[in-house]
Amino acid sequence: MLAGARKAFQSGAARSSQVMGELQATRDPARKSWIDSANDPHCDFPIQNLPFGVFSNAANQAPRVGVAIGDLVADLSVLHTAGLLRLPANAPQDVFARGALNGFIALGRETWRSVRVQLSSLLARETATLRDDAALRARAFVRQADATLHLPVEIPGYTDFYSSKEHATNVGSMFRDPKNALLPNWSEMPIGYNGRASSVVVSGTSVRRPSGQLKLPDQERPVLGACRKLDIELETGFIIGRGNALGEPIACEAAEDHIFGMVLLNDWSARDIQQWEYVPLGPFNAKTFATSISPWVVTLDALEPFRVAQPQQEPQPLEYLRHEGNHAFDIALEVLLRPEGAAQASTIARTNFRHMYWSMAQQLAHHTVAGCNTRVGDLMGSGTISGPTPDSFGSLLELTWNAKNPLALNGGETRVFIEDGDELTLAGWCQGDGYRVGFGTCVGKILPAHKA
Amino acid sequence: MLAGARKAFQSGAARSSQVMGELQATRDPARKSWIDSANDPHCDFPIQNLPFGVFSNAANQAPRVGVAIGDLVADLSVLHTAGLLRLPANAPQDVFARGALNGFIALGRETWRSVRVQLSSLLARETATLRDDAALRARAFVRQADATLHLPVEIPGYTDFYSSKEHATNVGSMFRDPKNALLPNWSEMPIGYNGRASSVVVSGTSVRRPSGQLKLPDQERPVLGACRKLDIELETGFIIGRGNALGEPIACEAAEDHIFGMVLLNDWSARDIQQWEYVPLGPFNAKTFATSISPWVVTLDALEPFRVAQPQQEPQPLEYLRHEGNHAFDIALEVLLRPEGAAQASTIARTNFRHMYWSMAQQLAHHTVAGCNTRVGDLMGSGTISGPTPDSFGSLLELTWNAKNPLALNGGETRVFIEDGDELTLAGWCQGDGYRVGFGTCVGKILPAHKA
Repeated sequence: MLAGARKAFQSGAARSSQVMGELQATRDPARKSWIDSANDPHCDFPIQNLPFGVFSNAANQAPRVGVAIGDLVADLSVLHTAGLLRLPANAPQDVFARGALNGFIALGRETWRSVRVQLSSLLARETATLRDDAALRARAFVRQADATLHLPVEIPGYTDFYSSKEHATNVGSMFRDPKNALLPNWSEMPIGYNGRASSVVVSGTSVRRPSGQLKLPDQERPVLGACRKLDIELETGFIIGRGNALGEPIACEAAEDHIFGMVLLNDWSARDIQQWEYVPLGPFNAKTFATSISPWVVTLDALEPFRVAQPQQEPQPLEYLRHEGNHAFDIALEVLLRPEGAAQASTIARTNFRHMYWSMAQQLAHHTVAGCNTRVGDLMGSGTISGPTPDSFGSLLELTWNAKNPLALNGGETRVFIEDGDELTLAGWCQGDGYRVGFGTCVGKILPAHKA
Repeated sequence: MLAGARKAFQSGAARSSQVMGELQATRDPARKSWIDSANDPHCDFPIQNLPFGVFSNAANQAPRVGVAIGDLVADLSVLHTAGLLRLPANAPQDVFARGALNGFIALGRETWRSVRVQLSSLLARETATLRDDAALRARAFVRQADATLHLPVEIPGYTDFYSSKEHATNVGSMFRDPKNALLPNWSEMPIGYNGRASSVVVSGTSVRRPSGQLKLPDQERPVLGACRKLDIELETGFIIGRGNALGEPIACEAAEDHIFGMVLLNDWSARDIQQWEYVPLGPFNAKTFATSISPWVVTLDALEPFRVAQPQQEPQPLEYLRHEGNHAFDIALEVLLRPEGAAQASTIARTNFRHMYWSMAQQLAHHTVAGCNTRVGDLMGSGTISGPTPDSFGSLLELTWNAKNPLALNGGETRVFIEDGDELTLAGWCQGDGYRVGFGTCVGKILPAHKA
């Protein structure tokens, strides 16, 4: 058993300050791993990241908890069974052998941090325990290329926000009034709505083009037909790590304590279905057919070095939405589109999470202010992340300005909305000094609609 | 073991037609129980009903599956263990010992029907097995007055519809244009939106008055404050008994096969929070603080004799929303309000589920037409059920016409919206010939808002 693991379960204040110091060390840009691929400066999964996910492989088809490191997945169930990863004595000892992270997350932040500290130590270049045990290494690692990645959490509830000022302004300009693009409530609260949790799928799952009611301009009544304006929404999502009881709001200052980590999220949207259905109760069939998330949950602990100030808020939010310090994160984001059969994807948007007007903490404080309860594993989408320039918009609707300005792709094709066979990829990472803390990708390919 | 139970698990077509015949017999108005209270013509739970729920009691605090009969709860886990209720041999045999109906429901309609047939036979006046076994009876029944009723299902997803034409017209008249009260999409599809499953609570749970952003008419900016326009919405809900796969819509004609049963549902609504937040993405904090449902799930099999035609639909719905036959149900509904300390409740509304414009089957067909998947235990709310007359509206908003016409209560008090300490009760039943198939009640008392 490692020193880090032993120390992590000492009791009292000494333990707490020791863990914080060790946690700090997990983020040391100079720390390297004995897994060479993790030290590549372009690798999304260096030793500073250690995102959690659920995987299986051909040799062991039971989904279980893993951590991405370099081009490998570390099998936490194996490391735990081997005595190299310690959980609190009073915790269920099978949480790494389960097919979703919820059980592990429910053990609480102190345990996430302890496991992070233990893993960082175990994987560090200078630690021989695992590095020099070829037999255990062979059991404890699976190549990412050989792994099947599953939905990382069971999602009891999914909420989607609408927190990019640029996105809300673009949509308001297109469909309402360019001079009053933002509705009056937008600047006062992080507008959100309930999404559909059942249809959240993991990256790599193909998505069937939806059919629904379309109101065509030349017809008096709607028709049932395949969506003609299929779109992405580039988002991130955060995963609730600690719930709140019904009737007990989460204070804005405490909200980040309730967040386990973040993923990339593609809120697939059928713009034509949405346009006809959404007044007055909001989007429904336009969104519920699929939402894709990336398989690796990047913890707030890993994102800590990339905190930045969010945009200035004017007017100053009501008191329940105020927090001190920096609550945005510098996460570079990209959208790529690859037509069926194309050798190469085209990057169609580049933006950054730091542009978001409302922080995750403000979203969660607002979500619960009237008493709504949240649960471990709940997913909260950021809303489309659009930046200030036309090449930084997070949806095709905005990038092509509702099909007015087709996008030119590599290879000569153009796009206004998504076509059958197109593969859409979201990517995101925080750029450190000589390394990056990445999210990997969130990929989905569009299958043709069912024949009517 | 009873003849009914044995027959229910014979194989093949003979079994199927036999079960259908026995199912028919469970609805025979002449059938009586040896439990006298079940034969009272005003009892909600005669032998023709047999609704499923989850209960515990002081002697056994483990929540388990029960069926309401007269003023008793039959403990299905005891009856099963005693060999009087048979499940398919290949099914998990512990489904009645679980704290939610989902496991039982997942066994499929043939099993629900078989259990219904077995129970009806076991409880029928002429069946001696249990009637004459005092020791087993003492273990197998709990008085409803001594039982704690729990949420009957774990609810993976909650969707709320908006399917009463009278309600939509009333709301449109108040807040938009009385001459064009119905939006153009309303008559073309059962408009729905995603609700929040985490805050669905069982009848009897007190509800904290929510606080949220209110935009007061005399102020430029919103304030955070306790809701001043707290309301009910009288609804029913149906529980999904068989899900559908992502990308595979449910046909309207087949939709009722996916429904396990119905409950009463109170969609508590904060009208002032709703008014300020709901454009453009729909209601959020105005609704997510609590939704109450009644504890007994009345099966579609029990409701079968009360099928009636739904209102004429004009225009004729698109083909995916068409079904032959009768798909409404004649369910009398009432809302009662009892101020704190009042001896007597006042009935403030009387209406009927048969007024609903869109059927449950149409709602489910629409919900899935774009590919959204549903899961066992999903809850689908009808939307506020308002009838054609001013005393048949399903919300205080409509009953008082947005506070213009206060309601007079017994005892001299008046109400425009709900006050602290008020207890609201929904009740519903189908009136048979000399018996009724009832839902029991859905009750909630309002606690004062937290101090700011």
